[in-house]
Amino acid sequence: MTVYDINLEAEQQAREHQGRLTKPPGALGKLEDFACWLAARQGKAIPEQLKPHICVFAGDHGVVDEGVSAYPSVVTGEMVKNFARGGAAINVLARQCNAGLSVVDAGVISDISDVEGVVHAKVRAGSANLAREAAMTGEEEKCALNLGRKQARQAIASGANLLIAGDMGIGNTTASACLICELAHADAQDVVGHGTGVDAEGRVRKVATVQQALKRVGNIPAHDVLRELGGLEIAAMAGFYLQSAEQGVPVIVDGFIAAAAALAARAYEPKVADWMLASHVSHEKGHRIALEALGLEPLINFNMRLGEGSGAALIVPLLQSAVALHREMATFESAGVSGKDG
Amino acid sequence: MTVYDINLEAEQQAREHQGRLTKPPGALGKLEDFACWLAARQGKAIPEQLKPHICVFAGDHGVVDEGVSAYPSVVTGEMVKNFARGGAAINVLARQCNAGLSVVDAGVISDISDVEGVVHAKVRAGSANLAREAAMTGEEEKCALNLGRKQARQAIASGANLLIAGDMGIGNTTASACLICELAHADAQDVVGHGTGVDAEGRVRKVATVQQALKRVGNIPAHDVLRELGGLEIAAMAGFYLQSAEQGVPVIVDGFIAAAAALAARAYEPKVADWMLASHVSHEKGHRIALEALGLEPLINFNMRLGEGSGAALIVPLLQSAVALHREMATFESAGVSGKDG
Repeated sequence: MTVYDINLEAEQQAREHQGRLTKPPGALGKLEDFACWLAARQGKAIPEQLKPHICVFAGDHGVVDEGVSAYPSVVTGEMVKNFARGGAAINVLARQCNAGLSVVDAGVISDISDVEGVVHAKVRAGSANLAREAAMTGEEEKCALNLGRKQARQAIASGANLLIAGDMGIGNTTASACLICELAHADAQDVVGHGTGVDAEGRVRKVATVQQALKRVGNIPAHDVLRELGGLEIAAMAGFYLQSAEQGVPVIVDGFIAAAAALAARAYEPKVADWMLASHVSHEKGHRIALEALGLEPLINFNMRLGEGSGAALIVPLLQSAVALHREMATFESAGVSGKDG
Repeated sequence: MTVYDINLEAEQQAREHQGRLTKPPGALGKLEDFACWLAARQGKAIPEQLKPHICVFAGDHGVVDEGVSAYPSVVTGEMVKNFARGGAAINVLARQCNAGLSVVDAGVISDISDVEGVVHAKVRAGSANLAREAAMTGEEEKCALNLGRKQARQAIASGANLLIAGDMGIGNTTASACLICELAHADAQDVVGHGTGVDAEGRVRKVATVQQALKRVGNIPAHDVLRELGGLEIAAMAGFYLQSAEQGVPVIVDGFIAAAAALAARAYEPKVADWMLASHVSHEKGHRIALEALGLEPLINFNMRLGEGSGAALIVPLLQSAVALHREMATFESAGVSGKDG
């Protein structure tokens, strides 16, 4: 399959429609830009209102053995239970914007097979320690990519026209930092941050761990980076993005982990970034580097650093407003309002 | 009456509550800050969900005689009709966030007395040309301030706990530039922008007009600035802000005009700014200067420059999400999730 091309004619028609609405040209700024961006992707001058769906992918990381995280791996499974019961931030935000929400066990260490309301698709119980060996085998990577693809396909089949991938995985800022260093050609010192909250000493360990992992793999092709340095939930997110773009459905990219997954997806298919919109720039160091490498400009800067898809879900109402304005505002002609200079 | 003090104890309790929710401390960034900000103003550790109400105040400006606007004054009345029929941007945005919406004729030149769905409270048919004489008399200013106060009082009586003032008035970026120059001690060159879209030549005229007005009034007390250099809808907005603060209800400040009205309100009562939240920083030059003078930090930057309360209404869902997260997320204890460092 190939990634869909965007429809520049629909975008142009949308831009002309914006010029007829009862406001000075351009006065709605980025809201106008988004409506036209969406028109190009839906292939419609007047795009349909957004029906978002969020998939949160969970996985654990062997690299936590290096002492890179402020929380123990057991929290990943505990948070999946919290998602299943509706108590996490992403549950609240999904309700706020009427988004569907799926929670997927892509590789949690804990046995959570008895938890209801979770897609149980564990590829393996946590990735290997990427500082010392490949995070996963080629077969496991393929399995995780296909898991993400399947979730996107199902969400689209159920009517979603805007997709969000979220992450949960203790240790995943370390894996993401590795991916960003490799795929955005950046230095560990510039990319590694405090994650969920390691102290200064923990961050020094984290930088050293990332450097060790980068040294271990040496000069490898972009295609091998995800398998060597990624994580199971990150691979699933990459597959999710690839499938969305192949089916012509836009995605909102969340924070640091999501940006790493987006870079991994782009290593497989450069045009996938055409279907991505950046939501926020997180407090986590290196997120901006990843977004710049993707050619994406974040819409907001709220100092968030939670993951779960929370930043992406948060901005959905802004995008829904942009579409509503484009669809519902009166034109100068229909409202009998005089144009510029009388 | 005096402006309410904010409740720092409730703010502290809200901050402690945030620390118990299932996320790393601070991971929701500005959303946490807003929930605590609101707690201090509602006087409740767990604030009530937001019930927003928007009042759009419309008025015309004699200063358009100087050739400072890209649109003719007739557009003010035409846009009020558009508001009344539900076709303007603010109507769409009010629907998106379930806000009440009132439209108030504070001083429109056109006779729109037959338009239904408008509060007909015209103080006078357009302000005087502030480049050559006082924009309004002391009596008219008082009348406009009281009009705004009455609208805030009614909105609060009907259950609103978050207020937004919007503006519509051809020529009002010129009046607002004058107010900002006087009240934020700034230079016309730094404050005057392109408004609804005057060209470079128009902007030169606009700068000269503002300079002429500033020269005309000379060194006047802050209390006299609104009467000399303001507008009828701007005075009503200032009254609206004063009443909200006096009743202990927070407001979201919209764009350039709203920031000028906020400065005018603060000239009467310094503590009114404690009750203000800045929504966005607009494309209009000088908005940032006004916000800095108010001590406010905008939440988003979307290059908007429409007025009507549109930027403030746009961000309401972000604030509603912040409150929902604060109210609905599970705690570490209730969800059985392990804390930091196990």
